[in-house]
Amino acid sequence: MTTATTKPAISRRALNVPHSAIRLLEGDANTAKARGVRIYHLNIGQPDIETPECIRRRASADRIVAYTPARGTEAVRSVMRDYYRGLGVALEHGQLMMTTGGSEALLFAMLACGDDGDEALIVEPMYANVRNFAAIGGITLRPLRTHVEDGFKLPPPEAWERAITDRTRFAMLCNPNNPTGTVSTPEEIRGIAEVCRRRGLFLIVDEVYREFVYDGRKPWSSLSLEGFDDTIVVADSVSKRYSACGMRLGCIATRNADVIAATGRMAEGRLSSPTIEQRMLEGIAELPADYMRGIVAEYGKRRDILFEGLTSIPGVELQLPQGAFYFIARLPVGDSLAFSRWLVSTFEVDGATVMLAPAPGFYLTPGLGRDEARIAYVLVENDLRNAIEILRKGIEAWNSR
Amino acid sequence: MTTATTKPAISRRALNVPHSAIRLLEGDANTAKARGVRIYHLNIGQPDIETPECIRRRASADRIVAYTPARGTEAVRSVMRDYYRGLGVALEHGQLMMTTGGSEALLFAMLACGDDGDEALIVEPMYANVRNFAAIGGITLRPLRTHVEDGFKLPPPEAWERAITDRTRFAMLCNPNNPTGTVSTPEEIRGIAEVCRRRGLFLIVDEVYREFVYDGRKPWSSLSLEGFDDTIVVADSVSKRYSACGMRLGCIATRNADVIAATGRMAEGRLSSPTIEQRMLEGIAELPADYMRGIVAEYGKRRDILFEGLTSIPGVELQLPQGAFYFIARLPVGDSLAFSRWLVSTFEVDGATVMLAPAPGFYLTPGLGRDEARIAYVLVENDLRNAIEILRKGIEAWNSR
Repeated sequence: MTTATTKPAISRRALNVPHSAIRLLEGDANTAKARGVRIYHLNIGQPDIETPECIRRRASADRIVAYTPARGTEAVRSVMRDYYRGLGVALEHGQLMMTTGGSEALLFAMLACGDDGDEALIVEPMYANVRNFAAIGGITLRPLRTHVEDGFKLPPPEAWERAITDRTRFAMLCNPNNPTGTVSTPEEIRGIAEVCRRRGLFLIVDEVYREFVYDGRKPWSSLSLEGFDDTIVVADSVSKRYSACGMRLGCIATRNADVIAATGRMAEGRLSSPTIEQRMLEGIAELPADYMRGIVAEYGKRRDILFEGLTSIPGVELQLPQGAFYFIARLPVGDSLAFSRWLVSTFEVDGATVMLAPAPGFYLTPGLGRDEARIAYVLVENDLRNAIEILRKGIEAWNSR
Repeated sequence: MTTATTKPAISRRALNVPHSAIRLLEGDANTAKARGVRIYHLNIGQPDIETPECIRRRASADRIVAYTPARGTEAVRSVMRDYYRGLGVALEHGQLMMTTGGSEALLFAMLACGDDGDEALIVEPMYANVRNFAAIGGITLRPLRTHVEDGFKLPPPEAWERAITDRTRFAMLCNPNNPTGTVSTPEEIRGIAEVCRRRGLFLIVDEVYREFVYDGRKPWSSLSLEGFDDTIVVADSVSKRYSACGMRLGCIATRNADVIAATGRMAEGRLSSPTIEQRMLEGIAELPADYMRGIVAEYGKRRDILFEGLTSIPGVELQLPQGAFYFIARLPVGDSLAFSRWLVSTFEVDGATVMLAPAPGFYLTPGLGRDEARIAYVLVENDLRNAIEILRKGIEAWNSR
């Protein structure tokens, strides 16, 4: 009997798929919770706002929970089309494809725009999970750096132009930006879209946080920029807008017929997005016109509390966040990963501590973001105030060890 | 102003992702339906059995529909672990990863086992959507042919051994097989697993139809074969077993720690499978022990009706299907695609017609399966009998045009 065994090797691509930067300290946090420590989660983007009742009450199963069409039901594409119309963006059904979460929208868009060995431009810090999708597709992300000192402002068009190589196939933006909280203007994005158009690149824009803009800014989509029908591909999600992260619905919205056809064929392969949730999402047609106003006001208030609190801590550096519900701050702690781990595993104030997302996981370039952390404001006011005080004391204690 | 425009080109990978073979005639079918024609769908695998009440009644939304852990909730992994224990397969939580449908289980498994430019062995005819996943990953599928004459029996180990090249990284099986209805024995699969082990390949086994076996066969998993912990990766789905296709839940089950870790990192990228459905699935703990027995008896009866009916049509060739709820038959029509299109678009008996899935879409090798079609038996007895008679008359009419 032959018993010779060659252990099979997993793919290089699989080796390149990183662990989620956001979940890096989960083990330490679970240990702390088991000890009875209360943890204020400033590290995650799970909103604490209720999913609207007009969505939730549709959560029921038919006699047979059947497949839906690969690109989404006609009904749900209609509510999404109407939603975009409300933003002043006219789209046909055939320019909208429902996806299983914004994650799948980003994955399919990236796979449709780049081949194994190709490159994509993206600013860092960046939405960390894009690295997972890039690794799956064998696409190399080429980062353009942004800086805490100027509020992580987008690099100008010339910087994007200079970064293009023979292998560059697309550029990516996230606006409003996770993790930095920066909101780019139509003019800024137009400048980059023009570079992409001129150089034959796609521009994939993650607009998952579209509504979360403060200080009188208006929600808008890059799809309203004229002249970029073949260039711009938007990845969207209902997760944050309707506080429905676990529903796993999003969409690709683009006027590029090749991209919508190609991502549609990818969707055919996986047959269907979840059926119950698509019917639930039809409920957004019942939402009052000012639904988002109250939510954005609440997040705006939280942002103010955090900004005021953090800037009162000596050595903490950040610009006023403009959108989303995250920002990146520089902390006077030297090594934010070591500090964050210490906070969760060792430090406590009255039985509570704070969990941060160390920023290096949001940078591609090794060594960057070492003294920065991403901070989310998805907690209620009182919890936020407690979290700030714990962080203030934590920084003091860390620096006087 | 520079208005030069270079239209961006979608990726080669995206161009390689095919349209679903099963949905090829959807346009013709919709036209016929609009004319008022009733269509008996022998082309699709959407079961008509009720999703169990103990699953359906759990379809409710929490106040916040939140993310779940990327690999699935502890509760749902427990019910899946218990399900496997019932098959005599002992698995730890860490050897089970929940996926968004069996589709994602296949996609992630393939991506973890092969790189762009690598090859995988698979029998043809095959589950057509594997082509989509292979194209996404840049993996070339190398087909081993099976034949209607011997009931699409698996090629012997020597044939697999001969087909291996320097680029082969894994082999794939679907057992019970969609689309052929063939059920392979533990000995047959062990023979192929031994080749894989010896040559350092993974063996990905799609066991979505595990319970759907007839004539006294017992459900089993290739995970019960001893000595292949590093070799065998099972892709599973709850879609068919619990008649819950729209729930989009499946899993990867393997004792290969590298594969479970790599596919887990891929899952972290997409954050979460649908939350409501994971809690729904916990309901399977309440199913009576003989839940599948009645369903399999029903499908067995339908298979008998179809087999008897089709073999009574002159020139139709098929072996008795052993499992799943599909089979491939040779039809005396020359070109099954032309015939199927004609059936849907032109032919009717008392205002009704039949829709088939032409077999060429299930073959990789051009020209194969030209006079074959995949036939699903997900209709009730009376509809099946009507469909057979329409098909009988359709073949007669087609051949006397």
